[in-house]
Amino acid sequence: MDAVSNSVSRPAGDVAPIVRLSQPDMDRVNQLIRERMASDVPLIPALADHLIAAGGKRLRPMLTIAAARASGGAKGIDAPLHLAAAVEFIHTATLLHDDVVDTSDLRRGKVAAHLIWGAPSSVLVGDFLFARAFELMVETDSMRALGILARASSVISEGEVLQLTRAHDLNLDTAVYLEIITAKTAELFAAAAEAGAVGAGADDAVVKGLRDYGMNLGIAFQLADDALDYGGTASALGKNAGDDFREGKVTLPLILAIERGGGLKDGFWDQAFAKSVRDDDDFARARERVIGTGAVSATLDVAGDYADAAKAALAVLPDSDWRDALDLLADYAVSRVY
Amino acid sequence: MDAVSNSVSRPAGDVAPIVRLSQPDMDRVNQLIRERMASDVPLIPALADHLIAAGGKRLRPMLTIAAARASGGAKGIDAPLHLAAAVEFIHTATLLHDDVVDTSDLRRGKVAAHLIWGAPSSVLVGDFLFARAFELMVETDSMRALGILARASSVISEGEVLQLTRAHDLNLDTAVYLEIITAKTAELFAAAAEAGAVGAGADDAVVKGLRDYGMNLGIAFQLADDALDYGGTASALGKNAGDDFREGKVTLPLILAIERGGGLKDGFWDQAFAKSVRDDDDFARARERVIGTGAVSATLDVAGDYADAAKAALAVLPDSDWRDALDLLADYAVSRVY
Repeated sequence: MDAVSNSVSRPAGDVAPIVRLSQPDMDRVNQLIRERMASDVPLIPALADHLIAAGGKRLRPMLTIAAARASGGAKGIDAPLHLAAAVEFIHTATLLHDDVVDTSDLRRGKVAAHLIWGAPSSVLVGDFLFARAFELMVETDSMRALGILARASSVISEGEVLQLTRAHDLNLDTAVYLEIITAKTAELFAAAAEAGAVGAGADDAVVKGLRDYGMNLGIAFQLADDALDYGGTASALGKNAGDDFREGKVTLPLILAIERGGGLKDGFWDQAFAKSVRDDDDFARARERVIGTGAVSATLDVAGDYADAAKAALAVLPDSDWRDALDLLADYAVSRVY
Repeated sequence: MDAVSNSVSRPAGDVAPIVRLSQPDMDRVNQLIRERMASDVPLIPALADHLIAAGGKRLRPMLTIAAARASGGAKGIDAPLHLAAAVEFIHTATLLHDDVVDTSDLRRGKVAAHLIWGAPSSVLVGDFLFARAFELMVETDSMRALGILARASSVISEGEVLQLTRAHDLNLDTAVYLEIITAKTAELFAAAAEAGAVGAGADDAVVKGLRDYGMNLGIAFQLADDALDYGGTASALGKNAGDDFREGKVTLPLILAIERGGGLKDGFWDQAFAKSVRDDDDFARARERVIGTGAVSATLDVAGDYADAAKAALAVLPDSDWRDALDLLADYAVSRVY
């Protein structure tokens, strides 16, 4: 696998400080997650645990915790703990449904749940986790935080539908692409951070700063993810490289490769997307062209700009180790694989 | 189609009074529904409207309105209107997902949405409506009502998963069957009525009475629906008769037909369920046996008992036209097709 280096030199970032700082709170969040996925219907915890125990980075609930801790709010950590667990449930529900929608076969490095228990189970257990998320939020007694995550949930599904209706559309432009990733990914990062700050009782300027941080971080994260789909490895991704291409998703590396490769006129991309199934050879050719035009590096440059915007949004926060850790996380989101 | 008569003579009931009384409020609920299914992503209102415009009886939101009006609560109708729209969104979301799970081809007398727009769209638009339901609830500022409907949503999905894991299981007993229909159907009726009463500011005894009414009504309703699947017509059902049988769902008419027909020992039912596809001839034979053993009538008798329990639960309510209309609705739920 070729290394794809970022054309602008960027700080490497680090996820370790935020993981270390949030560990005691995240232990409690994980305990809540385990408790609240319980059900008398055995398939539910079995399926949910398959995905939740696989772990992932727990980036979104960690963001809720870090936002609460960094915000200087005085209301304590109990509401943010519940909101963090709710955020992870919403995220897991969307993953279960996405894998059905995309018929993906790998998730978090494991066989996707729908291939073991069937798509109907994934749909229904996703619904269960989504409902449980709202039950957790009700316990916080913060209608404002609940409203933030309810709105995020509808925006996420709008983003997913928009992505679905624009799949295989090689004329997708950067603006609509950004609209899609803002809705399907960044909105939950933004809401996770915002809800954490609200739950902690932060003042409005800090709440807004943390929302802006989450939004920009989420966009940077998704851009890096989409770059990785052409420039990374399955082990780094926890899913197969080339999934976006195979599923006909038009992402920024592809949009930029088309632009930089003289548009669609040589028929290369139309031919690749005209096929109903794109195989490994098709992906190898596409990947060569995307990397060769510098589109992966260029995508990471754009991601870097969003990471910088995320860091700038932290200026309203009081000085703290938490703020420093959020700053390092923003750089990490872009640099995490190279 | 043979008429199957109820073995115990019951009052016919009537849905007209509650429809007439709730019409002005339901016009406002329908307006809210239309407004809140709007989205910049055109597929969403198109798909949602396909199902929502098809109408159905709007029984569940009507129940929220009627519970609010009958409760004597003094908080006004604004919160119940929003809760009613939320209840319809939750119900529509579950229908969209159920049709994917069951691969049904007919819903509310129209081609099921997933056959027009694909299963992925139905999954995602269901998610959207579910999220929008919570946004509507947030506007009521009633955390208690929101908690009732959040809990109902997780119970519904548990019921759906339980039904899925027990499909094709001819040893399903009446107790588990009742557990399934209580969760997947009756819980939303109960929550719809309870939330309406809470939203109107009713006192606790009335709230409890209306929850009990909704729960018993919901069980009666589902029992009658399951009886109709063997004894009714597609036009009465808004879906195909025999769907439960074809999908391998074991419902009370089937459980009772097995009991009354001497158990499983003649191999009739095992043979029918061993097939991966059950066709119209299989259903005709099954239907003959279910009706012939009196299992449809017996199911309707059980439904009648629940309708009576629903009516009894209304005793705590103040006298009103609304209470009388709820009383008639309970009988209607059982008698609606015969």
